[in-house]
Amino acid sequence: MTQIQFDAPAVFPRGFRCASRNCGLKPTAKDLALFVSDVDAAAAAVFTRNHFPGAPIILGRETIRGGRLRAIVANSKVSNVATGSRGVANARRMASAAATEIGTTADRVLVSSTGVIGVPLPIDIIERGLRGMSAELRADPLIGAEGIMTTDTYAKALSTRVGDATITWVAKGSGMIEPNMATMLAFIFTDAAIEPGALDAMLREAVDVSFNMLSVDTDTSTSDTCAILANGLAGRVPAVEFQRALTAGCIRMTELLARDGEGATHLLRASVRGALSTAEARRIAKSLVNSPLVKTMVFGADPNVGRILMAVGKCFDCTVPPDRTDAAINGYPVVRAGERLDFDDAVVRAALATEVVTLEVTVGAGDGSATAYGCDLTRGYIEENAAYYSS
Amino acid sequence: MTQIQFDAPAVFPRGFRCASRNCGLKPTAKDLALFVSDVDAAAAAVFTRNHFPGAPIILGRETIRGGRLRAIVANSKVSNVATGSRGVANARRMASAAATEIGTTADRVLVSSTGVIGVPLPIDIIERGLRGMSAELRADPLIGAEGIMTTDTYAKALSTRVGDATITWVAKGSGMIEPNMATMLAFIFTDAAIEPGALDAMLREAVDVSFNMLSVDTDTSTSDTCAILANGLAGRVPAVEFQRALTAGCIRMTELLARDGEGATHLLRASVRGALSTAEARRIAKSLVNSPLVKTMVFGADPNVGRILMAVGKCFDCTVPPDRTDAAINGYPVVRAGERLDFDDAVVRAALATEVVTLEVTVGAGDGSATAYGCDLTRGYIEENAAYYSS
Repeated sequence: MTQIQFDAPAVFPRGFRCASRNCGLKPTAKDLALFVSDVDAAAAAVFTRNHFPGAPIILGRETIRGGRLRAIVANSKVSNVATGSRGVANARRMASAAATEIGTTADRVLVSSTGVIGVPLPIDIIERGLRGMSAELRADPLIGAEGIMTTDTYAKALSTRVGDATITWVAKGSGMIEPNMATMLAFIFTDAAIEPGALDAMLREAVDVSFNMLSVDTDTSTSDTCAILANGLAGRVPAVEFQRALTAGCIRMTELLARDGEGATHLLRASVRGALSTAEARRIAKSLVNSPLVKTMVFGADPNVGRILMAVGKCFDCTVPPDRTDAAINGYPVVRAGERLDFDDAVVRAALATEVVTLEVTVGAGDGSATAYGCDLTRGYIEENAAYYSS
Repeated sequence: MTQIQFDAPAVFPRGFRCASRNCGLKPTAKDLALFVSDVDAAAAAVFTRNHFPGAPIILGRETIRGGRLRAIVANSKVSNVATGSRGVANARRMASAAATEIGTTADRVLVSSTGVIGVPLPIDIIERGLRGMSAELRADPLIGAEGIMTTDTYAKALSTRVGDATITWVAKGSGMIEPNMATMLAFIFTDAAIEPGALDAMLREAVDVSFNMLSVDTDTSTSDTCAILANGLAGRVPAVEFQRALTAGCIRMTELLARDGEGATHLLRASVRGALSTAEARRIAKSLVNSPLVKTMVFGADPNVGRILMAVGKCFDCTVPPDRTDAAINGYPVVRAGERLDFDDAVVRAALATEVVTLEVTVGAGDGSATAYGCDLTRGYIEENAAYYSS
């Protein structure tokens, strides 16, 4: 299989455009984004499994049942979570305002909000902010990506081609990121023609090995949303090729989100093989990228590799034969048969100092494999999160 | 029930003494401790569930089967983990050396090691260091506590009385602390007369609600050991009273370890009621003290209370009715029926700024309750762990 190539810069598929604005939720940065398809698109979405889903999630689950969308409207700064029935009413008003602006009905508009939990959504400001936005729609996905940023350090978009069709990803991540069913906010657009049911199955398959294997900080947001819109303007494409590109783009976007995790200075990948099952491989890989001691080891480029064994070994419910576990860092072996090798400290220190650190662990229990994506834990994470509400 | 009172300073029960030394593992700080009972004591112990137990754990599981101990010998700086069969041979040599020094057999000596994983134990240095230590044994538990410290900021010992008997706790904690079966190193001494089987049951009951509900950083050490020695010199005491004091002391020591977690500036307690079961209450309480976003909120005294709901809500497998969840911080209500209350920011900020922060969460699903113990997440944790191996 050839490697999937991504466009630089990212472009939109036929018939998709977006706009973003500062409507006054933040002092000056953009805080409102609108993504629009010229025609109705087949749509699918997955949402957070958190027991306290935000109002946009409650509404979104209802909206996505129709399997058709024309637009996504999203704001940053305030997440409209833990805001009760008034919060849901405000999310509905946000859908209606966007629908009016672009000339469709509210049930064709998916609403997303991200930001502080528990603060009432300033819906009047958002309604005013949406007015006239349809005149600003452009075929540049980065414009929309800017409108959904919170603590991300840059706007994130990717695109690639499948036959005559294009797939485009726009996402934000950064903190409160261990998605389960989806990630913070990830919107995918394609002009391929795919029915909602098939689209839903393809999205779930891609999300399973990408956003659902991402963890910046073990905390699962109340707003996670990953949605895909397929407007069909490029006609049908081979399903296998589409799935392959969709999964590859979701994994690449997952890596971008991990690398740009709050305070992060490294992308940390944990690749586990030889586990008893895929489920156990996933659990062990997640344990590695979630361990504060593994994460601080990567931050400090400190070859304290015993922490790798610790993080594998604390998966109590997994089968881990201690004398058959090997580990390597960026290809350099550091553990064999459960014992630390007498390695060259300087080589391991250099491997840990590279921007992308891949921990490869072989468990020796079976055929299960999985890769998880995370980042290092730094002073920057503490600083951003000790005063997030107030700043 | 009257509150259990602890002695200041902590004292030993009849017939227990200890000594500690710098034997050369660390530059100058104490790194070797010896705890001795004048007579054989009934003994019980629980150990880490990590799949990569240290050599002292492998040996300790064998030793404790006898149900009798005369001594505990422990070193800090090097944990003797991931060191293979040579590591176990070195742990046996350490037991033998201590046995020779005090005039007993190696099967009556429990060995503990704490420190860096994967470094060979300098057994010659330890053997030399043990020589002559029996002449230095004193009836002051803090002397032994000093010898087992790693990143702890002070030596920890507690004692209390049950009838004519005394119970004394000596422990170290600080990092790689989410014990499962026991905590890092906690040694308990009593002169009450209790048979090994009963002692084991009592220890497990106490550990279950104390050390097993502690988490500094979600990382489960490969060296966790909690052992109790009962030398019988004070005769029999009422079992119910003994259990009550044993549990209270284990909880108090758990709080001391949490408060002195690496980099910590607060003790964080999560008290959950109204969960479907005790097991679910334990899971939710642990989720709260383990959430990096809750922990950084406490560090920054930032009233970002939506994070409490997030951390409860990410317990996917627990029953959490979102509209029946209440939360309070040090008694001040911040969430009612799943909605953030319109509280006074300054009051919540002040509550979060106190040294002990208790989050009380009522889930509204049943009668299950539990309390977990942790600490805030600070720059100090990052600094200590980004270069622990090298420093």
